[in-house]
Amino acid sequence: MKGRLKFAIIGGDMRQVKLAELLAVDGHTVSAFAMDKIQSIWGVRRSDLLFDAVAGAAYVVLPLPLSGHQGFLNAPLSENTYTIEEVFRCLSPEQIICAGRIDSKSAEMAKNHRLNLFDYFQREELAVSNAVATAEGAIQLAMEETVITICHAKVLVIGFGRVGKLLAHRLRGLGADVTVSARSYADIAWIKAYGYRAANTLSLQGILSRFDIIYNTVPARVLGVELLRELSPDCLCIDLASKPGGMDFAAAAKLGINAIWALSLPGEVAPTTSGVIIKETIYNIISEQEVYK
Amino acid sequence: MKGRLKFAIIGGDMRQVKLAELLAVDGHTVSAFAMDKIQSIWGVRRSDLLFDAVAGAAYVVLPLPLSGHQGFLNAPLSENTYTIEEVFRCLSPEQIICAGRIDSKSAEMAKNHRLNLFDYFQREELAVSNAVATAEGAIQLAMEETVITICHAKVLVIGFGRVGKLLAHRLRGLGADVTVSARSYADIAWIKAYGYRAANTLSLQGILSRFDIIYNTVPARVLGVELLRELSPDCLCIDLASKPGGMDFAAAAKLGINAIWALSLPGEVAPTTSGVIIKETIYNIISEQEVYK
Amino acid sequence: MKGRLKFAIIGGDMRQVKLAELLAVDGHTVSAFAMDKIQSIWGVRRSDLLFDAVAGAAYVVLPLPLSGHQGFLNAPLSENTYTIEEVFRCLSPEQIICAGRIDSKSAEMAKNHRLNLFDYFQREELAVSNAVATAEGAIQLAMEETVITICHAKVLVIGFGRVGKLLAHRLRGLGADVTVSARSYADIAWIKAYGYRAANTLSLQGILSRFDIIYNTVPARVLGVELLRELSPDCLCIDLASKPGGMDFAAAAKLGINAIWALSLPGEVAPTTSGVIIKETIYNIISEQEVYK
Amino acid sequence: MKGRLKFAIIGGDMRQVKLAELLAVDGHTVSAFAMDKIQSIWGVRRSDLLFDAVAGAAYVVLPLPLSGHQGFLNAPLSENTYTIEEVFRCLSPEQIICAGRIDSKSAEMAKNHRLNLFDYFQREELAVSNAVATAEGAIQLAMEETVITICHAKVLVIGFGRVGKLLAHRLRGLGADVTVSARSYADIAWIKAYGYRAANTLSLQGILSRFDIIYNTVPARVLGVELLRELSPDCLCIDLASKPGGMDFAAAAKLGINAIWALSLPGEVAPTTSGVIIKETIYNIISEQEVYK
Repeated sequence: MKGRLKFAIIGGDMRQVKLAELLAVDGHTVSAFAMDKIQSIWGVRRSDLLFDAVAGAAYVVLPLPLSGHQGFLNAPLSENTYTIEEVFRCLSPEQIICAGRIDSKSAEMAKNHRLNLFDYFQREELAVSNAVATAEGAIQLAMEETVITICHAKVLVIGFGRVGKLLAHRLRGLGADVTVSARSYADIAWIKAYGYRAANTLSLQGILSRFDIIYNTVPARVLGVELLRELSPDCLCIDLASKPGGMDFAAAAKLGINAIWALSLPGEVAPTTSGVIIKETIYNIISEQEVYK
Repeated sequence: MKGRLKFAIIGGDMRQVKLAELLAVDGHTVSAFAMDKIQSIWGVRRSDLLFDAVAGAAYVVLPLPLSGHQGFLNAPLSENTYTIEEVFRCLSPEQIICAGRIDSKSAEMAKNHRLNLFDYFQREELAVSNAVATAEGAIQLAMEETVITICHAKVLVIGFGRVGKLLAHRLRGLGADVTVSARSYADIAWIKAYGYRAANTLSLQGILSRFDIIYNTVPARVLGVELLRELSPDCLCIDLASKPGGMDFAAAAKLGINAIWALSLPGEVAPTTSGVIIKETIYNIISEQEVYK
Repeated sequence: MKGRLKFAIIGGDMRQVKLAELLAVDGHTVSAFAMDKIQSIWGVRRSDLLFDAVAGAAYVVLPLPLSGHQGFLNAPLSENTYTIEEVFRCLSPEQIICAGRIDSKSAEMAKNHRLNLFDYFQREELAVSNAVATAEGAIQLAMEETVITICHAKVLVIGFGRVGKLLAHRLRGLGADVTVSARSYADIAWIKAYGYRAANTLSLQGILSRFDIIYNTVPARVLGVELLRELSPDCLCIDLASKPGGMDFAAAAKLGINAIWALSLPGEVAPTTSGVIIKETIYNIISEQEVYK
Repeated sequence: MKGRLKFAIIGGDMRQVKLAELLAVDGHTVSAFAMDKIQSIWGVRRSDLLFDAVAGAAYVVLPLPLSGHQGFLNAPLSENTYTIEEVFRCLSPEQIICAGRIDSKSAEMAKNHRLNLFDYFQREELAVSNAVATAEGAIQLAMEETVITICHAKVLVIGFGRVGKLLAHRLRGLGADVTVSARSYADIAWIKAYGYRAANTLSLQGILSRFDIIYNTVPARVLGVELLRELSPDCLCIDLASKPGGMDFAAAAKLGINAIWALSLPGEVAPTTSGVIIKETIYNIISEQEVYK
């Protein structure tokens, strides 16, 4: 999507900085606000006033997640704080506004302002690409935390959702002996069709002691104290699930198990790739709104 | 699922023959009917009367598809013909009856007889395993029909459903240069996440001439005469989609393109594997019915 | 290597026909002789006289293998027969002459005629590319001969030379459970580094019964009657080794084992790819001779 | 190799500590010396005197490399220093002595003492397994140093030796777009046979700007200032070659290129795996000496 559209990027972290630059590279007019800690952003006009930054912009991109600390706009690269409300007041119903992981309160507020708000975090294409970065970050973590090679390591991946699928694929590419567990017969059939060993997530007892590395991707308490007791003392546990997480970390600590809760890997491991993904997702949103000529 | 259950296998092809043997190997009591062209089936009691075969069987397995030529029971290994009606009359509401690809007329009839009829072809686990066999058969076909190696061949897979996913995975494993096309942004994100080149199924014009092999997996007319004209004269086209098929075969013939409509590959390429899959699917159905003690 | 060189292609099979066309496509002047059964060869001048075909050609390509039935020139696509001697008599010491698998008698004869004869079959790059075609042909054969899918099949590859390496790689890409055997500790280390199960070729007894498919790539009697007795009756054996072959075929037949001796797969499965490979190998030979300006 | 042999492990780093434990786990009698900074080593007898440690040991394992700082025994886990000479004086011609990367001076000295000294670092099986660890460490480094995902990254691997082969294999497993360069036609044929893009190491000019990550594995100055100027400013360069290294690091620094010289990755990234490998290599050496009964 080349051309000369007008974008305003308001707040966010290095991913949004990269996004702003990438949009400028594509030939668009881009203004940025609430990124004042960053000295220079290639091809992007910096504004001191929010009103000034969004004026004339057909498309406005807000952070992922939209709200940060205490419900303020998520803007870790700014010296100042802004309320979601004051941001919304500067926007208009004619603009296409994209934000990530929009909370219900903000969604309600946008509705009252009659704003066209789209959640780019809800898009499957962004979720998949994020899952790639999560899978890589999960592998990097295992490489850093273990004294063995991934090659020949016996690895269990619990769950065959987005992250589970992409993680298993990469682990095998590195020569690991991969087992994947799931609950449905359908998922187990897919696991076998991709050539992994299959296990049932609901009956992991008795098979856990053989693993060198266990990844959990299921957002439910899968590994309680009973199962954790079965692990080899050298086993590394990495929990990739969002809250409440899938492991009893307190019990793991008591048992002396190296258990790591790895949240928000994508933004950390690959901000540039994340910026590219957000850009493409926003282009897709714009295309679907058919407002692009 | 080991034990001593009682099964009756009625009609079908080599997959059902293999199924009967596998159930016997697992220790079950198995009787078979309407497979009279096959001389011996290991561990299976042959019946001359349908009534006799199903008597006392807790589980009855009918063919895939259930109905064959002119709506009769699909029983290519029998010298005789049987109506679905006469089969159903011998069955009882206490039995778990499994059949494949049940047509609506047969389903209605079963309902009138108060039979517990389950379609094992509708199960995701069977569909996935069938897709594996289809993907392999599709690769074998390309090996037989081309004068080039799959390694380095430029291959397009249209569609990223079950067969598309498993086929692309295997083609890359053989060293092909794989492009996959899909329609949704989500599927395109998945295609990229697995490392293939991505294309949009709705805008294939202009990119088709580079391919050595094109597989279609989408059950809709994707390759009409306009697109077929773009193909290299040496390009091999394999359509894996069920009716109506995705190619204009008449146009392909006129253009001198080698286009093959490959239907029902799974049964042909790997009856033993298919028998194993059907067995496991039937075990799953039984487990879910909680009738197994 | 584009340009306007002069080639003569004398004898051979479909690979040489394809080679002639490919050289013409690259812009060279190409004449062909002893391919009279083929009606048209794109861009190639046909000669009725050998002398006429080679006159003025800086480069002459002879068949692979050079000698065929009874030591005559290997020319299955010609109605006539020619001796190697009469071919050599028409050639001159100024020409670069490429032939495949040159026997010692022909080599001696070429020396007497002071001809510059290069064996393109001895080149590693041709051998590797041939091994790719052999590996694919070996997989196609297994697909055709078994009633199971390669996915999940337990496969043993004996030997980790060119064909063993490339075959194991592809089998795993298709989802097989791959074991590779070798004799040296070094090869066994490589086998493990690529993530396969490793075995010792000299101590296969006791492990053979688990395999569904066994490939031999070692040109020595590896599978004698004692080991063959251990095989499962459904096991498929494919011998890819050149003479004397690695299996006791007579014993296999007595034991009812499906054993296939698959020789010269490359030419059969992919003549076009083979033609491309021979062309590139000949370009490399020419480059190394520094005669190309 | 189970049994009750007597080993003495003298000096070395965490790999030798792990080796000592693994030998003890296998049931052997193991004594250790010059590892006094490590508090406990499972199943291993600690000696305060070198003479005591090696007394009665049929097999003695020295460090990798044998000589460390200023030519003393390489013993970073000891508070004291020992000369190679004083170690050799305690050993006898009846013992099998294994050491890693033996320098010529030490080899000469061993000869004078009539010791049976074997270099375990020279063994192909150890080199291959080390290359696996190097390849993984190289990938970990790229993950840590880049702001992009390996998936979709354009990566060049210079050289197709042990590390090049295993690194390319893993990068592709992670979804990278992999190009490998080599000098011989034979290696280029292998590179293509594995499905990578191929380039010639001697003519990299003009193609370098497209890469996100470049790995060098060739121990020769491949990337001089002229070629480095072609790189994209965001390109990460990782040199895996031992001295003199393949890049002009001074020039890279001036050009603002992120260039890393990553030496001795195996010991750092996976000491436990390294310990396992050394153990297996030593077992192989013992087997070949046929002294094991």
